[in-house]
Amino acid sequence: LTIASEDSFLQQLFPLLGTMPADVVLGPGDDCAALDIGGGRIWLLGIDQVVGERHYRQHGAQATPPELVGRKLLARNLSDIAAMGGEPRFALVSIAMADTGDDQQWLLAFHRGLLELAQQHNLVLIGGDLAQAPHDCVASLTIIGEAVGNAPICRHGAAVGDQLFLTGCCGDSFASGHHLHFQPRTPQGAWLARQQYASAMIDISDGLLLDARRLAAASAVQICLDVDAVPRRHAQVSRQALLADGEDYELLFTVNAAAASALLAAWPFADVALSCIGHVDAGPAGVVIASDGSILSAPGGFDHFRRIDSEVDL
Amino acid sequence: LTIASEDSFLQQLFPLLGTMPADVVLGPGDDCAALDIGGGRIWLLGIDQVVGERHYRQHGAQATPPELVGRKLLARNLSDIAAMGGEPRFALVSIAMADTGDDQQWLLAFHRGLLELAQQHNLVLIGGDLAQAPHDCVASLTIIGEAVGNAPICRHGAAVGDQLFLTGCCGDSFASGHHLHFQPRTPQGAWLARQQYASAMIDISDGLLLDARRLAAASAVQICLDVDAVPRRHAQVSRQALLADGEDYELLFTVNAAAASALLAAWPFADVALSCIGHVDAGPAGVVIASDGSILSAPGGFDHFRRIDSEVDL
Repeated sequence: LTIASEDSFLQQLFPLLGTMPADVVLGPGDDCAALDIGGGRIWLLGIDQVVGERHYRQHGAQATPPELVGRKLLARNLSDIAAMGGEPRFALVSIAMADTGDDQQWLLAFHRGLLELAQQHNLVLIGGDLAQAPHDCVASLTIIGEAVGNAPICRHGAAVGDQLFLTGCCGDSFASGHHLHFQPRTPQGAWLARQQYASAMIDISDGLLLDARRLAAASAVQICLDVDAVPRRHAQVSRQALLADGEDYELLFTVNAAAASALLAAWPFADVALSCIGHVDAGPAGVVIASDGSILSAPGGFDHFRRIDSEVDL
Repeated sequence: LTIASEDSFLQQLFPLLGTMPADVVLGPGDDCAALDIGGGRIWLLGIDQVVGERHYRQHGAQATPPELVGRKLLARNLSDIAAMGGEPRFALVSIAMADTGDDQQWLLAFHRGLLELAQQHNLVLIGGDLAQAPHDCVASLTIIGEAVGNAPICRHGAAVGDQLFLTGCCGDSFASGHHLHFQPRTPQGAWLARQQYASAMIDISDGLLLDARRLAAASAVQICLDVDAVPRRHAQVSRQALLADGEDYELLFTVNAAAASALLAAWPFADVALSCIGHVDAGPAGVVIASDGSILSAPGGFDHFRRIDSEVDL
């Protein structure tokens, strides 16, 4: 895509969207939209896709097994529900694919992988569409979840003084296969919402630094990141990989400083690391600095439109 | 796609879907799924896509203007809401596209066309996703509507003796440009639901004969089609084009015979033709016959997997 930048595109698009009706609690711009469906219930809706040769290997001996393609498509969307503190409920999926000679077997295996993960997360597939494409394989999934607690956890709730927390670890998602096998953090997101610990939350899909900037921008705060405190997937993960690799699918969230110790003590997920990796500052909105006060920028000039997983979430 | 047939694929897929929770009023298999959201309200959810060189011309001098691509994507989905007797509310859209050099202008024009139609139908865009594809352009839209009246109108409610009605006319949708400019029948669908005239309904997207068969199969009835009573888009539309062209996006529905004259008298849409084109028989389920009793089959052996608009709705 030759879009000048995500920001320039969204800045031109958002004014075209018009006024949202009263039951839209949250419109485009977060991990999910949120709708008030009455009876004190809020539904979360997100959309995400996987594209052959972008999000998985489509051709050749290294082709990703279709079960893992379907699994990844759903897992990415589950991560968006997790980031809002929701419980997944329903999904619809569309697939456009070229004639490959064994489409029916591929499609059934794709759905088997997707549905196995769906069952683990109490989600059902309620609709779909299938079309032929000239060359590529593109699968898109719309997920519907229900917010736990009083309201969804948004990107915009971080307050100066909050501590910054991260589940799991970062870096080297593609080579390690993490991007195909990760466990979406939906139990953790729902628990955080139920316990009302998180003031703001986002899932790390496009690199820790970029997603930290998004949370900081939405909350109109600066974030101070303690890079040395971020757990690495393994010892060979470089500083660049740690900050910018993407596809980590961990939760990054802020917690009132007075509640931080209680959170660490109460965290009930023995197999999911929880790390305090920084805090929220009163500096310029959307800026992420290191502990020495220097502004963090991804080495090489991060541009996620050029990456294999280049994407824009509205 | 080399799928043996739509039926064989869905017959293998549906058993994998598992048990639907109690609030799923209608799962996969109709134009939309239906969810009971409480308070006596039912939401309708559908998903449909457009693919470059399948549903519109992507390249060359004859390339479809991006405004009309976005318009068509939404209009197809509005037609699915219309077919259930719903009023449209929300949409999420994902786009995967190759680098074309002017993506930002194309994408903004695509959204302008989509949003102009959205505004006319009181629908708002609440989410999206954008990714890069190696070659193709695929756009998928999930639509959410609310059922009007007591329950959605399904494909499975037709009863022996019902009269068969069609809005508008059929045939030659592609060459005439109808597939890009049609007015989705959402006002008509919602009116039919509010007045409780329709016992079963489907939108004609894959050809009158195929969609009539789907309605007949879902209702476990035979349909007798008076081919001469089906309005043609213009005088040169052949019998084959009338029955099998597809992309007509009209409503096909059944009405209790005792209410048929009242419907024709009450029909308030002066600019949308309403025609009685047959009736429901007690013959073999899913079969469509002509007035002379012969079984109707599309000339040349209709196979929508080979068509430009080949698709499967789950």
